[in-house]
Amino acid sequence: MKPLGPIPASYAAIGGELAIAGKPVSHWVEQAGRTPLFVYSRDRIAQRFEMLRAAMPDRLKINYAIKANSFDPLLSFVSTLADGLDIASGGELEMVRATGFDLGRVSFAGPGKRDLELEAAIAAGVTLNLESEAEAGRALAIAERLGVTPRLAVRVNPDFELKGSGMKMGGGPKPFGIDAARVPALVRQIVAAGCDFRGLHIFTGSQALSAEAVIDMQAKVLDCAHRIAVDAGVTLPKLNMGGGFGIPYFPGDEPLDIAAVGAALEERFRDLPETLADAELFIELGRYLVGEAGVYLTRIVDRKESYGETYLVTDGGLHHQLAASGNFGTVVRRNYPVAIASRFAAEPAEEANVVGCLCTPLDRLADKAHLPRAEVGDLVAVFCAGAYGASASPSAFLGQGPAAEMLV
Amino acid sequence: MKPLGPIPASYAAIGGELAIAGKPVSHWVEQAGRTPLFVYSRDRIAQRFEMLRAAMPDRLKINYAIKANSFDPLLSFVSTLADGLDIASGGELEMVRATGFDLGRVSFAGPGKRDLELEAAIAAGVTLNLESEAEAGRALAIAERLGVTPRLAVRVNPDFELKGSGMKMGGGPKPFGIDAARVPALVRQIVAAGCDFRGLHIFTGSQALSAEAVIDMQAKVLDCAHRIAVDAGVTLPKLNMGGGFGIPYFPGDEPLDIAAVGAALEERFRDLPETLADAELFIELGRYLVGEAGVYLTRIVDRKESYGETYLVTDGGLHHQLAASGNFGTVVRRNYPVAIASRFAAEPAEEANVVGCLCTPLDRLADKAHLPRAEVGDLVAVFCAGAYGASASPSAFLGQGPAAEMLV
Repeated sequence: MKPLGPIPASYAAIGGELAIAGKPVSHWVEQAGRTPLFVYSRDRIAQRFEMLRAAMPDRLKINYAIKANSFDPLLSFVSTLADGLDIASGGELEMVRATGFDLGRVSFAGPGKRDLELEAAIAAGVTLNLESEAEAGRALAIAERLGVTPRLAVRVNPDFELKGSGMKMGGGPKPFGIDAARVPALVRQIVAAGCDFRGLHIFTGSQALSAEAVIDMQAKVLDCAHRIAVDAGVTLPKLNMGGGFGIPYFPGDEPLDIAAVGAALEERFRDLPETLADAELFIELGRYLVGEAGVYLTRIVDRKESYGETYLVTDGGLHHQLAASGNFGTVVRRNYPVAIASRFAAEPAEEANVVGCLCTPLDRLADKAHLPRAEVGDLVAVFCAGAYGASASPSAFLGQGPAAEMLV
Repeated sequence: MKPLGPIPASYAAIGGELAIAGKPVSHWVEQAGRTPLFVYSRDRIAQRFEMLRAAMPDRLKINYAIKANSFDPLLSFVSTLADGLDIASGGELEMVRATGFDLGRVSFAGPGKRDLELEAAIAAGVTLNLESEAEAGRALAIAERLGVTPRLAVRVNPDFELKGSGMKMGGGPKPFGIDAARVPALVRQIVAAGCDFRGLHIFTGSQALSAEAVIDMQAKVLDCAHRIAVDAGVTLPKLNMGGGFGIPYFPGDEPLDIAAVGAALEERFRDLPETLADAELFIELGRYLVGEAGVYLTRIVDRKESYGETYLVTDGGLHHQLAASGNFGTVVRRNYPVAIASRFAAEPAEEANVVGCLCTPLDRLADKAHLPRAEVGDLVAVFCAGAYGASASPSAFLGQGPAAEMLV
């Protein structure tokens, strides 16, 4: 028996089935007309924003990093709640443009921006988070050719990292941003060139569950930004402090204590140096805002035994749930929160492996899990499927194609 | 410095550039009109088939597992060379149908076949490799409803595995096939039901580079098939012996000695038991046939330094090369064969990291590699990109979209 990750709070059963937005999952599957299906809850996303805004200083603005989930209806909804949007490609710029969101509140980070992407972003008034001196040079040349004053911020590769984060993106050599020591010179150059200088972007890691680590990181981010501003002889109009807020996926994971994070930030904000006194202060979150609002539903198409083990074979799998299968940035596979959605009220009664339909041993959704007895036709739920699910998985693998998606 | 995987034999330079099918890579990029780009070589695929047929007994038939690469033109070409095609989904059935290939020479394996997929396959005369007794029951019911005699083979979960294989698919509890001990009963049932019994499918693993391991596996497969046939009281019309032939990806990997494999198989074929005397004997290969025939080309969009390390940032990445990035079924990341394609004749001159354009530290194509000095605009080649590249990667991630693909 291996434990399952923790199911996000307040999921309940209706008529024995897992309920989403007040309806049993079978209702949503019927609406979609097929499985596998991602169901994203509008209410859960809204509640998450409310909770976060209540915990954080009023002054702090919240950006949504659309890479977490750019499903059109979800993106449109989140864009009504977020203060800004962060994009990572020209493709994401077009997605945001389609929602009608004010492109002046969009920023674009990413180490490999092509000239065409720089051009589209500059022309649209999007803020570029510059990743290198060479990229700055290309952006300035393009802006000059377009006859536009570009909005430029500098992404900093800081000399510290977010401790205990799932993915470290700062501290030591990195492909992201510009080493902190070289940033002041670039800032001076941008300002001297007459650009619209939009401050700094300091992203140090993601998926941290320790409030202490996040608090420590945010303090260092503010200090780092201040030092750079002093060296560059500027005040900062804007600071994107990065994200890093994680959600529990695995057995033993505890939710991040955002009250503690908010209180510490409130404290810091009371005493900001002059370089930051008038800055717009942002955090940039993706997974934390939408991850727990999504459930992936897949139907059991076979139930089989092999050498005494039970396999529940589903019509979904790693082609929609690469991370849950344990194949995306994880070394040791652990179980995500998984349940028999059509028997959500039933007690666990057996040990079973939940696998996908792909002909590869990598395609496993739950390993030796303690579950209610399930039969062919039952629905399996994988929770925490709202971020880095559909778009971060190889949906064309083995000719399968994408899952259905719904915002409800 | 970390070593790179071995570049497949006989790639040469023309005018200093890597040549594919007698033309420099810049020619193919110009033809495609963009990067990133997969270029697959018709000649290399044909040569691989020739080499393989020369090494293997005449009697052995060669199936192509289209999951390795189902790009339309490539699939059409390979279908002129292969004796049969193996599919793993209803989606792949439609791809094969579109090529006009004889569906009577197609077999369908996969643990999670939906009823609609079973129905389409039975109606088309495709052989089903049954993965469980329950699936057999569903197939029989569907065939009866359609008034069709179904072509049914049984996929065996054998009591041994392919030693040293990259992915083990037999030996112990598995979601694939039916435990060997239970197969004879199912075979008798299929025969008694008046189905067109198409023999057995025994697939034990993939990506093996040891001839000894493959020889051992094939001997055991033949023995296992014989024992099952004796127990079931049948002779086998057909036996799919599985695949398992690997290709070198990583530093130190040596090509599989197929001459040795062929000689051992020739020996075994001289002395087959009566149960197998008239059987059509197949191997099923994917990666081995097309993997080395593909090159992924991506352009350098930035060159940057961080804490003394050099990063070459490309316009491609893990969204097309999940396995090469080290994020697909690998525990310890090692470098694939990678080169500066536009300076293929140049000597290595520096240590550099080749990364993708995605805003995640997972997106790395070569780690601390010894490469010629490359600049923005240069092309990077990732070799061994013909199998499990485009279709096995999350192309929509971060709004990037698929790479171009060409068969040349």
